[in-house]
Amino acid sequence: MAESKDPLQSVINEFKKLPGIGAKSAQRIAFYLTRCSSKECDELSSSITELKDGIVLCSRCNDVSGIDPCRICSDATRDHSQICVVENPFNVHTIEKGGHYRGTYHVLHGSISPLNGIGPEDLKIKNLFDRLREDVAAEVILATNPTIDGEATAHYLKNLIKSLDRRVSRIAFGIPVGSDLDYADEVTLSRAIAGRTVL
Amino acid sequence: MAESKDPLQSVINEFKKLPGIGAKSAQRIAFYLTRCSSKECDELSSSITELKDGIVLCSRCNDVSGIDPCRICSDATRDHSQICVVENPFNVHTIEKGGHYRGTYHVLHGSISPLNGIGPEDLKIKNLFDRLREDVAAEVILATNPTIDGEATAHYLKNLIKSLDRRVSRIAFGIPVGSDLDYADEVTLSRAIAGRTVL
Repeated sequence: MAESKDPLQSVINEFKKLPGIGAKSAQRIAFYLTRCSSKECDELSSSITELKDGIVLCSRCNDVSGIDPCRICSDATRDHSQICVVENPFNVHTIEKGGHYRGTYHVLHGSISPLNGIGPEDLKIKNLFDRLREDVAAEVILATNPTIDGEATAHYLKNLIKSLDRRVSRIAFGIPVGSDLDYADEVTLSRAIAGRTVL
Repeated sequence: MAESKDPLQSVINEFKKLPGIGAKSAQRIAFYLTRCSSKECDELSSSITELKDGIVLCSRCNDVSGIDPCRICSDATRDHSQICVVENPFNVHTIEKGGHYRGTYHVLHGSISPLNGIGPEDLKIKNLFDRLREDVAAEVILATNPTIDGEATAHYLKNLIKSLDRRVSRIAFGIPVGSDLDYADEVTLSRAIAGRTVL
Protein backbone atom coordinates (compact mmCIF):
# COMPACT_ATOMS: atom_id res chain seq x y z
CA MET A 1 0.00 0.00 0.00
CA ALA A 2 2.61 2.46 -1.15
CA GLU A 3 1.81 6.15 -1.51
CA SER A 4 2.15 7.23 -5.11
CA LYS A 5 3.56 10.60 -4.05
CA ASP A 6 4.06 11.79 -0.52
CA PRO A 7 3.08 15.51 -0.30
CA LEU A 8 5.23 15.95 2.79
CA GLN A 9 8.29 14.46 1.10
CA SER A 10 7.69 16.67 -1.95
CA VAL A 11 7.79 19.80 0.20
CA ILE A 12 10.93 18.57 1.97
CA ASN A 13 12.62 17.85 -1.37
CA GLU A 14 11.68 21.25 -2.79
CA PHE A 15 12.90 23.21 0.26
CA LYS A 16 16.15 21.24 0.35
CA LYS A 17 17.00 22.75 -3.04
CA LEU A 18 17.00 26.28 -1.59
CA PRO A 19 20.29 27.84 -0.50
CA GLY A 20 21.13 27.44 3.19
CA ILE A 21 18.38 24.89 3.82
CA GLY A 22 19.53 21.38 4.69
CA ALA A 23 17.56 18.20 5.28
CA LYS A 24 16.77 19.03 8.93
CA SER A 25 15.57 22.58 8.21
CA ALA A 26 13.48 21.37 5.27
CA GLN A 27 11.78 18.78 7.49
CA ARG A 28 11.16 21.35 10.19
CA ILE A 29 9.60 23.74 7.68
CA ALA A 30 7.45 21.00 6.12
CA PHE A 31 6.03 19.96 9.49
CA TYR A 32 5.54 23.60 10.39
CA LEU A 33 3.53 24.09 7.18
CA THR A 34 1.27 21.13 8.00
CA ARG A 35 0.26 23.05 11.13
CA CYS A 36 -0.26 26.35 9.26
CA SER A 37 -3.67 27.42 8.00
CA SER A 38 -4.45 27.03 4.31
CA LYS A 39 -4.41 30.82 4.07
CA GLU A 40 -0.84 31.04 5.38
CA CYS A 41 0.31 28.31 2.99
CA ASP A 42 -1.40 30.05 0.08
CA GLU A 43 0.29 33.34 0.93
CA LEU A 44 3.70 31.68 0.86
CA SER A 45 2.94 29.74 -2.29
CA SER A 46 1.51 32.69 -4.19
CA SER A 47 4.35 35.01 -3.13
CA ILE A 48 6.66 32.59 -4.96
CA THR A 49 4.46 32.43 -8.06
CA GLU A 50 4.05 36.20 -8.12
CA LEU A 51 7.79 36.70 -7.81
CA LYS A 52 8.39 35.22 -11.25
CA ASP A 53 5.39 36.99 -12.74
CA GLY A 54 5.98 40.33 -11.03
CA ILE A 55 9.69 40.72 -11.32
CA VAL A 56 11.49 42.37 -14.21
CA LEU A 57 15.06 43.44 -14.80
CA CYS A 58 15.43 47.21 -14.84
CA SER A 59 16.37 48.07 -18.44
CA ARG A 60 18.81 50.70 -17.14
CA CYS A 61 20.70 49.03 -14.28
CA ASN A 62 19.59 45.35 -14.62
CA ASP A 63 18.53 45.16 -10.98
CA VAL A 64 15.54 42.93 -10.21
CA SER A 65 12.53 45.11 -9.61
CA GLY A 66 8.75 45.26 -9.65
CA ILE A 67 8.83 48.17 -12.12
CA ASP A 68 10.98 49.31 -15.06
CA PRO A 69 12.92 51.54 -14.63
CA CYS A 70 13.53 50.46 -11.06
CA ARG A 71 12.83 52.50 -7.96
CA ILE A 72 16.45 53.69 -7.71
CA CYS A 73 16.92 54.57 -11.40
CA SER A 74 13.68 56.57 -11.42
CA ASP A 75 14.45 58.39 -8.15
CA ALA A 76 15.43 61.99 -8.95
CA THR A 77 16.83 62.51 -5.44
CA ARG A 78 19.57 59.89 -6.04
CA ASP A 79 22.96 61.01 -7.32
CA HIS A 80 22.96 59.90 -10.97
CA SER A 81 26.55 61.04 -11.40
CA GLN A 82 27.69 57.89 -9.58
CA ILE A 83 27.24 54.33 -10.83
CA CYS A 84 28.18 51.52 -8.47
CA VAL A 85 28.89 48.34 -10.45
CA VAL A 86 28.05 45.10 -8.62
CA GLU A 87 27.90 41.43 -9.58
CA ASN A 88 24.32 40.58 -8.57
CA PRO A 89 21.05 42.08 -7.30
CA PHE A 90 21.72 40.85 -3.77
CA ASN A 91 24.76 43.14 -3.67
CA VAL A 92 22.46 46.12 -4.39
CA HIS A 93 20.21 45.01 -1.56
CA THR A 94 23.20 44.72 0.80
CA ILE A 95 24.57 48.19 -0.04
CA GLU A 96 21.08 49.73 0.18
CA LYS A 97 20.64 48.28 3.67
CA GLY A 98 23.74 50.22 4.69
CA GLY A 99 21.75 53.32 3.78
CA HIS A 100 24.75 55.56 3.08
CA TYR A 101 25.23 55.27 -0.67
CA ARG A 102 23.04 57.72 -2.59
CA GLY A 103 24.18 57.04 -6.17
CA THR A 104 22.85 54.53 -8.69
CA TYR A 105 23.82 50.94 -9.48
CA HIS A 106 24.65 48.70 -12.38
CA VAL A 107 24.21 44.94 -11.99
CA LEU A 108 26.46 42.77 -14.16
CA HIS A 109 24.71 39.48 -13.31
CA GLY A 110 27.96 37.62 -12.86
CA SER A 111 31.70 38.14 -13.18
CA ILE A 112 34.28 37.35 -15.82
CA SER A 113 35.40 33.81 -15.17
CA PRO A 114 37.59 32.24 -17.87
CA LEU A 115 37.66 28.92 -15.98
CA ASN A 116 33.86 28.70 -16.19
CA GLY A 117 33.78 30.00 -19.76
CA ILE A 118 32.16 33.30 -18.76
CA GLY A 119 33.50 36.21 -20.82
CA PRO A 120 32.61 39.94 -20.85
CA GLU A 121 29.97 39.27 -23.55
CA ASP A 122 28.03 37.08 -21.07
CA LEU A 123 27.65 39.96 -18.60
CA LYS A 124 25.36 42.97 -18.77
CA ILE A 125 28.14 45.34 -19.72
CA LYS A 126 26.72 46.76 -22.95
CA ASN A 127 24.06 48.91 -21.31
CA LEU A 128 26.58 50.18 -18.76
CA PHE A 129 28.39 51.84 -21.67
CA ASP A 130 25.08 53.04 -23.11
CA ARG A 131 24.59 54.80 -19.77
CA LEU A 132 28.11 56.22 -19.77
CA ARG A 133 27.60 57.62 -23.24
CA GLU A 134 24.64 59.64 -21.89
CA ASP A 135 27.25 61.79 -20.15
CA VAL A 136 25.48 61.98 -16.77
CA ALA A 137 27.74 59.65 -14.81
CA ALA A 138 31.01 61.19 -13.69
CA GLU A 139 32.28 58.27 -11.62
CA VAL A 140 32.01 54.50 -11.79
CA ILE A 141 32.61 52.71 -8.49
CA LEU A 142 33.65 49.11 -9.04
CA ALA A 143 32.18 47.00 -6.22
CA THR A 144 32.71 43.50 -7.63
CA ASN A 145 33.86 40.94 -5.07
CA PRO A 146 37.50 40.63 -3.96
CA THR A 147 37.77 37.22 -5.67
CA ILE A 148 39.86 36.26 -8.70
CA ASP A 149 36.79 36.61 -10.95
CA GLY A 150 35.61 39.84 -9.31
CA GLU A 151 39.07 41.38 -9.59
CA ALA A 152 39.38 40.30 -13.24
CA THR A 153 36.01 41.93 -13.95
CA ALA A 154 37.03 45.14 -12.18
CA HIS A 155 40.32 45.22 -14.10
CA TYR A 156 38.56 44.69 -17.43
CA LEU A 157 36.00 47.44 -16.74
CA LYS A 158 38.59 49.87 -15.39
CA ASN A 159 40.46 49.95 -18.70
CA LEU A 160 37.30 50.37 -20.78
CA ILE A 161 35.83 53.10 -18.60
CA LYS A 162 39.11 55.03 -18.41
CA SER A 163 39.17 55.12 -22.20
CA LEU A 164 35.84 57.02 -21.98
CA ASP A 165 37.54 59.54 -19.73
CA ARG A 166 35.45 58.83 -16.64
CA ARG A 167 36.64 58.55 -13.08
CA VAL A 168 36.87 54.91 -11.98
CA SER A 169 37.26 53.81 -8.37
CA ARG A 170 37.38 50.51 -6.53
CA ILE A 171 35.79 50.01 -3.09
CA ALA A 172 38.28 49.60 -0.24
CA PHE A 173 39.33 46.19 1.03
CA GLY A 174 40.84 45.88 4.48
CA ILE A 175 40.16 45.02 8.09
CA PRO A 176 36.40 44.85 8.83
CA VAL A 177 35.31 47.58 11.26
CA GLY A 178 34.88 46.18 14.77
CA SER A 179 37.21 43.29 14.00
CA ASP A 180 40.72 42.68 15.31
CA LEU A 181 43.97 42.90 13.34
CA ASP A 182 45.01 39.53 14.77
CA TYR A 183 42.06 37.80 13.17
CA ALA A 184 42.66 39.16 9.69
CA ASP A 185 44.15 36.80 7.09
CA GLU A 186 47.42 37.76 5.38
CA VAL A 187 45.87 38.81 2.10
CA THR A 188 43.35 41.10 3.80
CA LEU A 189 46.10 42.55 5.97
CA SER A 190 48.39 43.26 3.02
CA ARG A 191 45.45 44.90 1.15
CA ALA A 192 44.72 46.99 4.25
CA ILE A 193 48.30 48.22 4.36
CA ALA A 194 48.53 48.79 0.61
CA GLY A 195 45.23 50.72 0.71
CA ARG A 196 46.18 52.91 3.69
CA THR A 197 45.00 56.53 3.58
CA VAL A 198 47.07 59.52 4.58
CA LEU A 199 45.74 61.22 7.72
CA MET B 1 6.96 56.55 -8.02
CA ALA B 2 6.49 54.02 -5.25
CA GLU B 3 5.82 50.36 -5.98
CA SER B 4 2.41 49.31 -4.73
CA LYS B 5 3.71 45.90 -3.69
CA ASP B 6 7.24 44.65 -4.12
CA PRO B 7 7.14 40.96 -5.15
CA LEU B 8 10.67 40.44 -3.86
CA GLN B 9 9.82 41.90 -0.47
CA SER B 10 6.69 39.71 -0.28
CA VAL B 11 8.75 36.57 -0.77
CA ILE B 12 11.27 37.74 1.83
CA ASN B 13 8.47 38.47 4.32
CA GLU B 14 6.81 35.09 3.73
CA PHE B 15 10.03 33.10 4.12
CA LYS B 16 10.97 35.01 7.27
CA LYS B 17 7.87 33.51 8.93
CA LEU B 18 9.23 29.98 8.52
CA PRO B 19 11.07 28.37 11.43
CA GLY B 20 14.86 28.71 11.33
CA ILE B 21 14.81 31.30 8.54
CA GLY B 22 15.98 34.78 9.46
CA ALA B 23 16.10 37.97 7.44
CA LYS B 24 19.43 37.12 5.77
CA SER B 25 18.40 33.61 4.74
CA ALA B 26 15.05 34.87 3.46
CA GLN B 27 16.81 37.45 1.29
CA ARG B 28 19.26 34.88 0.00
CA ILE B 29 16.40 32.54 -0.93
CA ALA B 30 14.38 35.32 -2.58
CA PHE B 31 17.30 36.34 -4.79
CA TYR B 32 18.01 32.69 -5.53
CA LEU B 33 14.40 32.29 -6.69
CA THR B 34 14.66 35.27 -9.05
CA ARG B 35 17.43 33.33 -10.81
CA CYS B 36 15.44 30.07 -10.90
CA SER B 37 13.36 29.04 -13.89
CA SER B 38 9.58 29.49 -13.74
CA LYS B 39 9.31 25.68 -13.67
CA GLU B 40 11.45 25.43 -10.55
CA CYS B 41 9.46 28.16 -8.79
CA ASP B 42 6.20 26.47 -9.78
CA GLU B 43 7.40 23.14 -8.37
CA LEU B 44 8.20 24.76 -5.04
CA SER B 45 4.99 26.75 -4.96
CA SER B 46 2.73 23.83 -5.90
CA SER B 47 4.43 21.46 -3.44
CA ILE B 48 3.28 23.86 -0.72
CA THR B 49 -0.28 24.09 -2.09
CA GLU B 50 -0.49 20.33 -2.51
CA LEU B 51 0.73 19.78 1.02
CA LYS B 52 -2.43 21.28 2.49
CA ASP B 53 -4.64 19.57 -0.09
CA GLY B 54 -2.90 16.21 0.02
CA ILE B 55 -2.25 15.77 3.71
CA VAL B 56 -4.65 14.12 6.15
CA LEU B 57 -4.35 13.00 9.75
CA CYS B 58 -4.36 9.22 10.08
CA SER B 59 -7.61 8.39 11.89
CA ARG B 60 -5.77 5.74 13.90
CA CYS B 61 -2.51 7.34 15.02
CA ASN B 62 -3.06 11.04 14.08
CA ASP B 63 0.21 11.20 12.13
CA VAL B 64 0.23 13.48 9.07
CA SER B 65 0.03 11.32 5.98
CA GLY B 66 -0.94 11.21 2.33
CA ILE B 67 -3.35 8.33 3.00
CA ASP B 68 -5.67 7.19 5.80
CA PRO B 69 -4.82 4.92 7.56
CA CYS B 70 -1.20 5.96 7.25
CA ARG B 71 1.63 3.89 5.80
CA ILE B 72 2.73 2.65 9.23
CA CYS B 73 -0.74 1.81 10.61
CA SER B 74 -1.58 -0.16 7.47
CA ASP B 75 1.75 -2.00 7.38
CA ALA B 76 1.17 -5.61 8.50
CA THR B 77 4.90 -6.17 8.95
CA ARG B 78 5.04 -3.60 11.79
CA ASP B 79 4.64 -4.73 15.37
CA HIS B 80 1.12 -3.60 16.29
CA SER B 81 1.58 -4.76 19.87
CA GLN B 82 3.68 -1.65 20.54
CA ILE B 83 2.40 1.94 20.46
CA CYS B 84 4.95 4.71 20.81
CA VAL B 85 3.26 7.91 22.02
CA VAL B 86 4.84 11.13 20.76
CA GLU B 87 3.95 14.80 20.90
CA ASN B 88 4.03 15.68 17.19
CA PRO B 89 4.42 14.21 13.70
CA PHE B 90 8.01 15.40 13.47
CA ASN B 91 8.84 13.06 16.38
CA VAL B 92 7.53 10.13 14.31
CA HIS B 93 9.73 11.24 11.44
CA THR B 94 12.76 11.45 13.75
CA ILE B 95 12.25 7.98 15.23
CA GLU B 96 11.58 6.47 11.79
CA LYS B 97 14.86 7.89 10.52
CA GLY B 98 16.60 5.91 13.25
CA GLY B 99 15.18 2.84 11.54
CA HIS B 100 15.24 0.57 14.60
CA TYR B 101 11.72 0.90 16.00
CA ARG B 102 9.27 -1.51 14.30
CA GLY B 103 6.10 -0.80 16.31
CA THR B 104 3.36 1.76 15.66
CA TYR B 105 2.89 5.35 16.83
CA HIS B 106 0.31 7.61 18.39
CA VAL B 107 0.63 11.36 17.90
CA LEU B 108 -0.89 13.53 20.63
CA HIS B 109 -0.46 16.83 18.74
CA GLY B 110 0.79 18.63 21.82
CA SER B 111 1.42 18.08 25.50
CA ILE B 112 -0.47 18.88 28.65
CA SER B 113 0.46 22.42 29.61
CA PRO B 114 -1.56 23.99 32.43
CA LEU B 115 0.33 27.28 32.06
CA ASN B 116 -0.85 27.55 28.44
CA GLY B 117 -4.31 26.29 29.25
CA ILE B 118 -3.81 22.99 27.39
CA GLY B 119 -5.49 20.09 29.18
CA PRO B 120 -5.80 16.37 28.29
CA GLU B 121 -9.05 17.08 26.43
CA ASP B 122 -7.12 19.27 23.95
CA LEU B 123 -4.86 16.39 22.94
CA LYS B 124 -5.65 13.40 20.72
CA ILE B 125 -5.89 11.01 23.64
CA LYS B 126 -9.40 9.61 23.05
CA ASN B 127 -8.51 7.49 20.02
CA LEU B 128 -5.43 6.16 21.84
CA PHE B 129 -7.80 4.51 24.31
CA ASP B 130 -10.04 3.36 21.44
CA ARG B 131 -6.95 1.57 20.12
CA LEU B 132 -6.07 0.13 23.51
CA ARG B 133 -9.61 -1.28 23.87
CA GLU B 134 -9.05 -3.26 20.64
CA ASP B 135 -6.74 -5.44 22.72
CA VAL B 136 -3.91 -5.64 20.16
CA ALA B 137 -1.42 -3.37 21.89
CA ALA B 138 0.46 -4.95 24.77
CA GLU B 139 2.82 -2.06 25.49
CA VAL B 140 2.64 1.72 25.32
CA ILE B 141 6.02 3.47 25.08
CA LEU B 142 5.80 7.07 26.26
CA ALA B 143 8.18 9.15 24.16
CA THR B 144 7.00 12.66 25.05
CA ASN B 145 9.79 15.19 25.55
CA PRO B 146 11.78 15.46 28.81
CA THR B 147 10.23 18.87 29.51
CA ILE B 148 7.83 19.83 32.31
CA ASP B 149 4.87 19.54 29.91
CA GLY B 150 6.12 16.31 28.33
CA GLU B 151 6.71 14.74 31.74
CA ALA B 152 3.27 15.83 32.94
CA THR B 153 1.71 14.25 29.86
CA ALA B 154 3.62 11.02 30.38
CA HIS B 155 2.61 10.93 34.03
CA TYR B 156 -1.06 11.50 33.17
CA LEU B 157 -1.08 8.78 30.49
CA LYS B 158 0.86 6.29 32.65
CA ASN B 159 -1.89 6.24 35.29
CA LEU B 160 -4.69 5.89 32.75
CA ILE B 161 -2.99 3.13 30.75
CA LYS B 162 -2.01 1.17 33.86
CA SER B 163 -5.69 1.10 34.85
CA LEU B 164 -6.32 -0.74 31.55
CA ASP B 165 -3.72 -3.31 32.61
CA ARG B 166 -1.26 -2.58 29.81
CA ARG B 167 2.49 -2.38 30.08
CA VAL B 168 3.65 1.25 30.06
CA SER B 169 7.26 2.30 29.54
CA ARG B 170 9.12 5.58 29.24
CA ILE B 171 12.06 6.07 26.85
CA ALA B 172 15.46 6.43 28.55
CA PHE B 173 16.99 9.82 29.27
CA GLY B 174 20.70 10.10 29.89
CA ILE B 175 24.04 10.96 28.34
CA PRO B 176 23.82 11.14 24.52
CA VAL B 177 25.86 8.41 22.85
CA GLY B 178 29.16 9.80 21.53
CA SER B 179 29.03 12.65 24.01
CA ASP B 180 31.20 13.27 27.05
CA LEU B 181 30.11 13.03 30.71
CA ASP B 182 31.75 16.37 31.38
CA TYR B 183 29.49 18.16 28.92
CA ALA B 184 26.24 16.81 30.39
CA ASP B 185 24.12 19.16 32.49
CA GLU B 186 23.29 18.20 36.08
CA VAL B 187 19.70 17.14 35.41
CA THR B 188 20.69 14.86 32.54
CA LEU B 189 23.49 13.39 34.63
CA SER B 190 21.22 12.67 37.57
CA ARG B 191 18.65 11.06 35.22
CA ALA B 192 21.44 8.97 33.68
CA ILE B 193 22.47 7.71 37.11
CA ALA B 194 18.88 7.12 38.27
CA GLY B 195 18.13 5.23 35.06
CA ARG B 196 21.23 3.02 35.18
CA THR B 197 20.83 -0.58 34.03
CA VAL B 198 22.35 -3.58 35.74
CA LEU B 199 25.05 -5.28 33.65
